[in-house]
Amino acid sequence: MASLPARVHIQEVVTRDGLQIEPRFLPTPDKIALIDALSQTGVSKIEVTSFVSPKAVPNLADAGEVARAITRRAGVTYVALVPNLRGAQAALEAGMDELNLVLSVSATHNLANMRMTPEQSLEGFRAIVAETKGRALLNGSIATAFGCPFEGTQAPDKVLALAGRYLEIGLDSITLADTTGMANPRQVAGLVRAVRQSFGAVPLTLHFHNTRGMGLANVLAALEEGADRFDASLGGIGGCPFAPGATGNISTEDLVHMLEEMGVATGVDLPRLLELARGLPALLGHDINGQVAKAGRSGDLHPVPAGIEAAS
Amino acid sequence: MASLPARVHIQEVVTRDGLQIEPRFLPTPDKIALIDALSQTGVSKIEVTSFVSPKAVPNLADAGEVARAITRRAGVTYVALVPNLRGAQAALEAGMDELNLVLSVSATHNLANMRMTPEQSLEGFRAIVAETKGRALLNGSIATAFGCPFEGTQAPDKVLALAGRYLEIGLDSITLADTTGMANPRQVAGLVRAVRQSFGAVPLTLHFHNTRGMGLANVLAALEEGADRFDASLGGIGGCPFAPGATGNISTEDLVHMLEEMGVATGVDLPRLLELARGLPALLGHDINGQVAKAGRSGDLHPVPAGIEAAS
Repeated sequence: MASLPARVHIQEVVTRDGLQIEPRFLPTPDKIALIDALSQTGVSKIEVTSFVSPKAVPNLADAGEVARAITRRAGVTYVALVPNLRGAQAALEAGMDELNLVLSVSATHNLANMRMTPEQSLEGFRAIVAETKGRALLNGSIATAFGCPFEGTQAPDKVLALAGRYLEIGLDSITLADTTGMANPRQVAGLVRAVRQSFGAVPLTLHFHNTRGMGLANVLAALEEGADRFDASLGGIGGCPFAPGATGNISTEDLVHMLEEMGVATGVDLPRLLELARGLPALLGHDINGQVAKAGRSGDLHPVPAGIEAAS
Repeated sequence: MASLPARVHIQEVVTRDGLQIEPRFLPTPDKIALIDALSQTGVSKIEVTSFVSPKAVPNLADAGEVARAITRRAGVTYVALVPNLRGAQAALEAGMDELNLVLSVSATHNLANMRMTPEQSLEGFRAIVAETKGRALLNGSIATAFGCPFEGTQAPDKVLALAGRYLEIGLDSITLADTTGMANPRQVAGLVRAVRQSFGAVPLTLHFHNTRGMGLANVLAALEEGADRFDASLGGIGGCPFAPGATGNISTEDLVHMLEEMGVATGVDLPRLLELARGLPALLGHDINGQVAKAGRSGDLHPVPAGIEAAS
């Protein structure tokens, strides 16, 4: 195994990517309490919400209220996804540290999701940069970087070219997003290596879904290529719009558990994170996808059965 | 990423490890039909059943009947787990090609599970070798090789020493089993490397559970060290006796999907395997853990939404 980074940044997205396709609206005070609790766990970044049209994502209609009401903790970066200039302005007014701009490298997916061509999306990014640069960090996410449910696999050169354009127009950091969980570890290793060779100094986040069970294997492949920032969702909350019953984002607690078991520091309080994950079924009304919340940590030993003497 | 093996052997364990803790007895004809269907998928090996006491594992009380009734396919190795000489004799009489002998490297776990010390288990293995050598292949499984739920992590030297003793007494091949899903990828890489350095010519199987979500990441770590034989259970059926709700073995169809997506050949007909996995809920009366059966393969594209023109 290649040497792994000594320290990895955990970026929590449960209240944005996790909640956006939940069947029920999570009440605003519950969202605020969840974010405030997550702020205390040691995660590096929290994607608080999305300043999108309430018609498009009713679950996040309270974006401004949530963003203004949370208690900031020093050292945590608070992010909002913004689809356009109006959203960017609202996010800035609500005090967000970072804006996450998203565009699909698959033109078909971008048209279906954003009703814009990729070029039109990039024009919108330019307007946001002009308005907000210096007042917030700007992250550019490349959705469907590892495959599009309509077009299939995306050529790595297209992804690299888009990353280059993000940097040209003034974005500060890049996320490669496996939007519908199509990435495989060999592909991840290749694309992470290529992006780091071309743009090594730029902060790079990997955003994986566990839709086909490969989420943590993809994390391992990315780690071996030096990636050290990962998005994840508490409980593995979130799903796939194309596959009822499929899982969503990789689970934050399962990710932290794997990293800590491998000796990769995260700075995250795993027992506290597990408590929060175990509280999600009561909040959301359904089971979670995360495994460690059910099975316990690898190191949580069990009592020796009666009548058996512990050996060695 | 290190270079990966070009071809991997898939070894199906659903009717043994998968079924043994199911809440309901799967009727004998259903077991036979499932094994016969699996024989047609291209898997290299099928662990048919276990010749244990029906009191200990009531779900496999029909071991002899199942083993005798299945239709053999050339090229597939049919295995049974055997706990003792009597079981070995019954498995041979039922025509099994290979016997799987299991002992926990954790003495406490061996005492709890087998009511024997490891030395007593090894004595039993010697008797089985004396009786059956040359009439069947003999595989030695090292249970709790990556951790014991009572004792915790097991020293790699203990595992290596036990593997050495397996070979001394005449076993033909070795399985490292992560019995309760405690392994992490860095640990897997280290132990696979050590075993291959010491016993490189001996066929080595990795048997992972997905109890804490790391199953396929552990496969990746093992592949990178050259491992090319993996046990897996259709649907990810099977659970963890210590954690109600936790998942069991890694899912065969998710494993094959990941390998094929990475360009590693398995010889397995994935669409047929997915059909069988999708039939399990009706057979077993509950949902499965495998993800690909729900989400479809990464390459299964979706129709472009109405009103959107497919681009690029």
